[in-house]
Amino acid sequence: MYQFYYFSNSCSLASHIALEHAGADYEAIRIDFAKEEQRKDKYLGINAKGRVPALVTPRGILTENPAILMFVSETFPDAGLAPLGDAFLMAQVHSFNAYLSSTVHVAHAHGVRGIRWADDQAAIDEMKVKAPEVVGDCFELIEKTLFKGPWVMGDQYSICDMYLFTIAQWLEADRVDPARFPKVLAHRSRMLEEPVVKRVLAAQ
Amino acid sequence: MYQFYYFSNSCSLASHIALEHAGADYEAIRIDFAKEEQRKDKYLGINAKGRVPALVTPRGILTENPAILMFVSETFPDAGLAPLGDAFLMAQVHSFNAYLSSTVHVAHAHGVRGIRWADDQAAIDEMKVKAPEVVGDCFELIEKTLFKGPWVMGDQYSICDMYLFTIAQWLEADRVDPARFPKVLAHRSRMLEEPVVKRVLAAQ
Repeated sequence: MYQFYYFSNSCSLASHIALEHAGADYEAIRIDFAKEEQRKDKYLGINAKGRVPALVTPRGILTENPAILMFVSETFPDAGLAPLGDAFLMAQVHSFNAYLSSTVHVAHAHGVRGIRWADDQAAIDEMKVKAPEVVGDCFELIEKTLFKGPWVMGDQYSICDMYLFTIAQWLEADRVDPARFPKVLAHRSRMLEEPVVKRVLAAQ
Repeated sequence: MYQFYYFSNSCSLASHIALEHAGADYEAIRIDFAKEEQRKDKYLGINAKGRVPALVTPRGILTENPAILMFVSETFPDAGLAPLGDAFLMAQVHSFNAYLSSTVHVAHAHGVRGIRWADDQAAIDEMKVKAPEVVGDCFELIEKTLFKGPWVMGDQYSICDMYLFTIAQWLEADRVDPARFPKVLAHRSRMLEEPVVKRVLAAQ
């Protein structure tokens, strides 16, 4: 039994979908960002970073989407969430997820949480102005270069699809026109039809 | 035979150390950031992101440190660079490396490449002002919470050590006093004594 800490519409959605897809025995616990619960002592004892997702396992606590996604893939190999056993294909999975976490999610964060990187309100506003351009450039690269199709990694559905879907959900809020990225948009629509995704979105 | 693209003192140092430690057969090719070679067509054909590291393998090109570090660990299991086969410990490795790439490296980048996230010079200057505080907070978390000792993951030396060392090398340039982090500082000194690290630094 795992405890999974998440917040609705945050990046934790990716790991949540993976747990549900794998049929893991888990309890989903919502951390309310509106009430700043992620910065309170109770939650900081689980994840000192004050972020989601966090997964409490019998052996300890795991944080960071790429790590939890990998953990679920390897713990539930029958779910077929990653090309386990092929070092090159696995590295491609890691590479795609690393790009999402270290570049695309970061680009998005400048539109909503510039306070992480500047104190001055004018500077925070400047980051917000540029965010749609930066996020748009990231999705341009995904659309033209990284996305193999029909799934991110080609024929095999994987944890990359869950993570891309999660961040692609933010495009409109990021003031980026999804119509610029037909493959990503079609992928997002298909993901919304997946029964597992529907179940997780309803539960959140 | 691999071709490994790097720039001196950049984050690619981590993957470079891993390749050398594993005894991989590779050619190291320096991309000169001072000449903006990373943004020229020749290199963009290898890595459309215009970043280092990039590893050209017989099966294709890999980018992103966390992915290349994993690839080297799995391709050269005898080098003992990661706790292969233990899903939980591997997830801890992924988690630490994901934190370095998506939070710590990003914090550093605001001190030197704010132009990625704002056009206005005053905003870029504001990010530069705050960067030492943000980088310092990251290393505080590493020192107090994430670092197990004597190596990052405890008794086993791993790819996490190579990556932490690489980013800890930037502390002074980031205007953060390393003396605040005695474990990280001792780790950095020990890494500088590793023959493999010495060889790579000399080669770069």
